Amino acid sequence: MHESTAFTRIDSAEAMARIEPLIQRTPTLSSQSLNEAAGCELIFKCEHLQKTGSFKLRGASYAVSRLLDQRNDSRAGVATHSSGNHGAALAAAATARGLAAHVVMPENAVQTKVNAVRRYGGEVHFCSPTQVAREQGLAELVAQGYVPIPPYDHDDIIAGQGTLALEFLQQTEKLDTIVAPIGGGGLLAGITQAVARSGRPIRIIGAEPAGADDAVRSLAAGTRVRDHFPDTIADGLRALIGQRNLTILKAHRIEILTISDAQILHAMQRLWTELKQVIEPSGAVALAAVLSHAEVFAGRKVGVVLSGGNLDLDPFFQHLEHL
Amino acid sequence: MHESTAFTRIDSAEAMARIEPLIQRTPTLSSQSLNEAAGCELIFKCEHLQKTGSFKLRGASYAVSRLLDQRNDSRAGVATHSSGNHGAALAAAATARGLAAHVVMPENAVQTKVNAVRRYGGEVHFCSPTQVAREQGLAELVAQGYVPIPPYDHDDIIAGQGTLALEFLQQTEKLDTIVAPIGGGGLLAGITQAVARSGRPIRIIGAEPAGADDAVRSLAAGTRVRDHFPDTIADGLRALIGQRNLTILKAHRIEILTISDAQILHAMQRLWTELKQVIEPSGAVALAAVLSHAEVFAGRKVGVVLSGGNLDLDPFFQHLEHL
Repeated sequence: MHESTAFTRIDSAEAMARIEPLIQRTPTLSSQSLNEAAGCELIFKCEHLQKTGSFKLRGASYAVSRLLDQRNDSRAGVATHSSGNHGAALAAAATARGLAAHVVMPENAVQTKVNAVRRYGGEVHFCSPTQVAREQGLAELVAQGYVPIPPYDHDDIIAGQGTLALEFLQQTEKLDTIVAPIGGGGLLAGITQAVARSGRPIRIIGAEPAGADDAVRSLAAGTRVRDHFPDTIADGLRALIGQRNLTILKAHRIEILTISDAQILHAMQRLWTELKQVIEPSGAVALAAVLSHAEVFAGRKVGVVLSGGNLDLDPFFQHLEHL
Repeated sequence: MHESTAFTRIDSAEAMARIEPLIQRTPTLSSQSLNEAAGCELIFKCEHLQKTGSFKLRGASYAVSRLLDQRNDSRAGVATHSSGNHGAALAAAATARGLAAHVVMPENAVQTKVNAVRRYGGEVHFCSPTQVAREQGLAELVAQGYVPIPPYDHDDIIAGQGTLALEFLQQTEKLDTIVAPIGGGGLLAGITQAVARSGRPIRIIGAEPAGADDAVRSLAAGTRVRDHFPDTIADGLRALIGQRNLTILKAHRIEILTISDAQILHAMQRLWTELKQVIEPSGAVALAAVLSHAEVFAGRKVGVVLSGGNLDLDPFFQHLEHL
């Protein structure tokens, strides 16, 4: 794997030095029964235990930190669009630094995630659940003076998410593969850049829901596809891949595996049952790829990113109350 | 707190030395939002991450280990009665040493727990969900030559469960209170003995479902109550308190707080939401006591035992499949 010279300014080591006091160093977990099910050795990176419940705090914290260095016009606050986890992370990162945070969210966003944005001090603006409506909502906030912090197509966001890989490499010896989910591509591109810079010979694999497989199709076409109508239970992975993210994945010839919603739910239930961890559908996609494409991973030592744990638990608890 | 001289043979330090290679040293977790909700500092001992998904492996491992030292007639195997977690733990501990394990379970046991006993190599024998039927089922197995390893009213079981407290004290500085659930009382009595022997001035508090409050009533009466008809969602805490366990709790004047099933479910949902941990109802009882009796814990540094994470997740996942 060679380094993409176009993105040398994406520096996760610099990001790590900056955000280390602001984020959790998340633990890793393993499970003998999941190793047996997968036919390889799995190390899970528990990013659902990150503050705000997902990896998104890494990129948001770094982007806000850099913004305060660089600009004097940022005092009005920041804005973004998000299905939820980036919105909550940006709200937490911005309010921690005294900035207002405005978040455009699709009206079908998970209620828990809407609540989380508000709990961390952000203001929610609903829009239709399309990429165009998200981007238009953000444009309106930018016209009002808020500085946009996009959820993934942004160098600082990519560098921040890449800190996850640096931590993972420090924690785990002899990892030979890392599997991470892909939606907009900030996490996968960040991991790719960080691992490439580390010089370690580690294979990076993306995991994408079949119902939102724009990254696979964009890589095949060599350019971002336009027909993207996501239909998947993995609400965090419905966004269209970003341009910067696609360029990085192309440059490093990153392979992406797709999985069905049924496979995602199966993997999610195994994580709840065996690891006792509450993982949201998007967070279970990497394990789903490992279990559904066992031949790719046989005998390897595979780092599996559990990217988030925010979902609506009310239906389950209402069921329990009526037992 | 003074030591009960009647139970000096219950030695958790000796148990720890023996079982350390057989069990997990489980991690601790904390949550700022749960601290704020409780009005005190909470440290959670994650015993749901113990092998077999509960603390029960500690006592079972020690009891099996001691049995193999002491007796030559144990080769037929071991037997017990259990709502599930002790059964799975004994099956795992026995089969690891080449012994057969037979487990009497109430016919209303959680299906996941029945499956777990079988997965760890145990044989399940169903009985009516009463204390009498459980004990009778066990007596029949003993008549067939299997050595009984009772779930809680047993010195080695109590000593083994107490290793949890020794680990917890090593992991956490300046703990001033430990709260743990009570069903049969093995865990609470073990913690009480281990802390008393350590000489540390730590207050121990039991947490018991109001629908299975025989420990509270037995302590008030000075003797085990006979009218015990448990009705609680906390399936792991439906057993009647054991004689040894009652004697230890009496000797140390241990206070027990009761909570309703609604309070248990509320605490459980908070653990899933804030800590992202899959905790079974019985495992959430200690936090329920802290949240429902805030005045007892205000300003303290409280160790909260999350005792298990085994429950039936199928209904929730069936719900998700139909979204």
